[in-house]
Amino acid sequence: NTSFDPKKHPHRRYNPLLDEWVLVSPQRANRPWQGQREITAEKDRPAYDPDCYLCSGNIRANGNRNPEYKGTYVFNNDFGALLNEEVDFSEEYSGFFTLLPERGINRVVCFSEDHSLTLPEMSVEQIKNVVDVWQEQFNELAVLDHINYIQIFENKGSIMGCSNPHPHGQIWAQSSIPAMVQKTQDQLKSYFEKNKRTLLQDYLQQEITAGERMITENEDFAALVPFWASWPYETMIISKQKRENIAAFSEDEKKSFAAILKNLTTMYDNLFETSFPYSAGIHQSPTDGKEHPEWHFHMHFYPPLLRSAEIKKFMVGYEMLAEPQRDITPEQSTAILRSLSTIHYKKK
Amino acid sequence: NTSFDPKKHPHRRYNPLLDEWVLVSPQRANRPWQGQREITAEKDRPAYDPDCYLCSGNIRANGNRNPEYKGTYVFNNDFGALLNEEVDFSEEYSGFFTLLPERGINRVVCFSEDHSLTLPEMSVEQIKNVVDVWQEQFNELAVLDHINYIQIFENKGSIMGCSNPHPHGQIWAQSSIPAMVQKTQDQLKSYFEKNKRTLLQDYLQQEITAGERMITENEDFAALVPFWASWPYETMIISKQKRENIAAFSEDEKKSFAAILKNLTTMYDNLFETSFPYSAGIHQSPTDGKEHPEWHFHMHFYPPLLRSAEIKKFMVGYEMLAEPQRDITPEQSTAILRSLSTIHYKKK
Ligand SMILES: O=P(O)(O)O[C@H]1O[C@H](CO)[C@@H](O)[C@H](O)[C@H]1O
Ligand SMILES: O=P(O)(O)O[C@H]1O[C@H](CO)[C@@H](O)[C@H](O)[C@H]1O
Repeated sequence: NTSFDPKKHPHRRYNPLLDEWVLVSPQRANRPWQGQREITAEKDRPAYDPDCYLCSGNIRANGNRNPEYKGTYVFNNDFGALLNEEVDFSEEYSGFFTLLPERGINRVVCFSEDHSLTLPEMSVEQIKNVVDVWQEQFNELAVLDHINYIQIFENKGSIMGCSNPHPHGQIWAQSSIPAMVQKTQDQLKSYFEKNKRTLLQDYLQQEITAGERMITENEDFAALVPFWASWPYETMIISKQKRENIAAFSEDEKKSFAAILKNLTTMYDNLFETSFPYSAGIHQSPTDGKEHPEWHFHMHFYPPLLRSAEIKKFMVGYEMLAEPQRDITPEQSTAILRSLSTIHYKKK
Repeated sequence: NTSFDPKKHPHRRYNPLLDEWVLVSPQRANRPWQGQREITAEKDRPAYDPDCYLCSGNIRANGNRNPEYKGTYVFNNDFGALLNEEVDFSEEYSGFFTLLPERGINRVVCFSEDHSLTLPEMSVEQIKNVVDVWQEQFNELAVLDHINYIQIFENKGSIMGCSNPHPHGQIWAQSSIPAMVQKTQDQLKSYFEKNKRTLLQDYLQQEITAGERMITENEDFAALVPFWASWPYETMIISKQKRENIAAFSEDEKKSFAAILKNLTTMYDNLFETSFPYSAGIHQSPTDGKEHPEWHFHMHFYPPLLRSAEIKKFMVGYEMLAEPQRDITPEQSTAILRSLSTIHYKKK
């Protein structure tokens, strides 16, 4: 028998944040691809687009007009998935028909009035303004009694369901703790109770020692490819100090966070010299009024691309029914990502 | 306060097969869509394509030649995600770096020599041949000591990562029980231990009584939209009698299964008068040599389309970070699906 080599042989890795496994198939990276290609015709966008419903001063689909904003701008989503209205709930929906009403608030956060930008093309100061808004929004929503979790995220690129290229993200604040966050919390909690340190404190320490999955870091944050990453170029930003949520960030930490966001997203754009699509979002403590010493701020980046701007990874069939599967190993992805410049390809 | 109405108000539903929740937002169905549209230019395909690596007698990417087959044809995937080779594993990968080698066999199952067909366009007899092959393959792989779970599935349509329109599915047989199957098994087991009936026996009974999520049925199988479905037109086929796996199907049951597969996939094609894409796959008992009285054969259909052949549901941002979310309710989807003919639109 040959000896096992994680660079060559199929294996499964354990994800301690979700208590799940991922199938890694390093030998599969060079299969030929005859399937769907994404359209990548990227046009340079103007700084102002009269037809964009997120641009300064424009009218939205529901007839409301945006103010003439500069920098960031936040408004309630006109077609949110949640409603803030309180409803009376008396009927019983139990057993196989278990159902509970859900209340919440959906907001849109424009990152800049400039229609042509994306995070990596903004300055650290401009990104810092976005981080300020995330913190303000978190503080504002956290005090509401019926808001127990606040999901801050960005869908970037039409391939990720983003229907408008104007730089923006979303905030979904709701009364329940959503399934994956609850799962992560359970995992963080049992680790914390056992070890009196957060899972991510210990994990980050071990990753810094191992080195082979580290992408970039600064004084306050590190970006790495998780050992259990399932998307080809999945990464995670972790605060070096334990912070339960974004409300705990100091001015300096917000600057550092903006700086690592700029570096990581620039490296992403440089990978295939394209505006790199992803869904990214922050996982942090719920705002349910309970103590959460187990929580440790982190941000996930789930990018769909695999081999080029045109060829994405399909998480389908086996992945939907059985478990996530990846070809290129996390260590190979890291080596590729960290070799990339932090100067944006358009600025060279 | 208004009274809660599941047709109007956001709510969460519980999925007892995965112990997860899904967010349902009925009020969101009519938001305008300015985002990505799928390309649907469907060409009529010839019955034989000289460039197709799955057609009878053609050469595959690795140089092997397919026999001049008629009907079904099975071969080992030339670029499988698993390797059948046994490897020595001695190094320790533990804690945050937990990893285990995985062995397995990947097969491709051509449904027909006719390049132009898809399941709904095949006759019940032709589909029955596919079901026969699934059963044979299951039996053949189940006896192998190192094969403990057999995932039978189909990715249909380029939007679902299918790289070749020739009608075919896949079988991934492996040494571990994959994450989602394990989760389902845990749920089925705890239900069975408590109730001495399978979860799906009781669930199906209650759905037949309720009626509002039933799509189509015959003597041996029912197709319905699960109460907790997350994809807009997600469905599930359940055996009416408890069957642990496909090996237990009689000749008559295989015919009934073929018949319901034809009806369901035809209704799907008729929905948007397009070759309806999906990932579908069978969940059944592991082949790990243990007793599995808790298992109950079922097949999941996860189709990506939402509003038309061009507009799909994006399971992105919130869905990747928090939990699955849907707009149209399962009851609305059922009403639409079951109003459709079981005669294929191309044959009218
Ligand atoms: O093996 P195929 O058909 O080339 O590949 C397809 O199905 C697999 C199993 O669902 C996925 O891992 C791939 O991403 C997808 O493109
Ligand atoms: O609200 P948007 O940006 O229109 O919608 C996008 O993000 C949402 C949250 O991830 C998803 O539910 C939608 O499927 C997607 O198209």
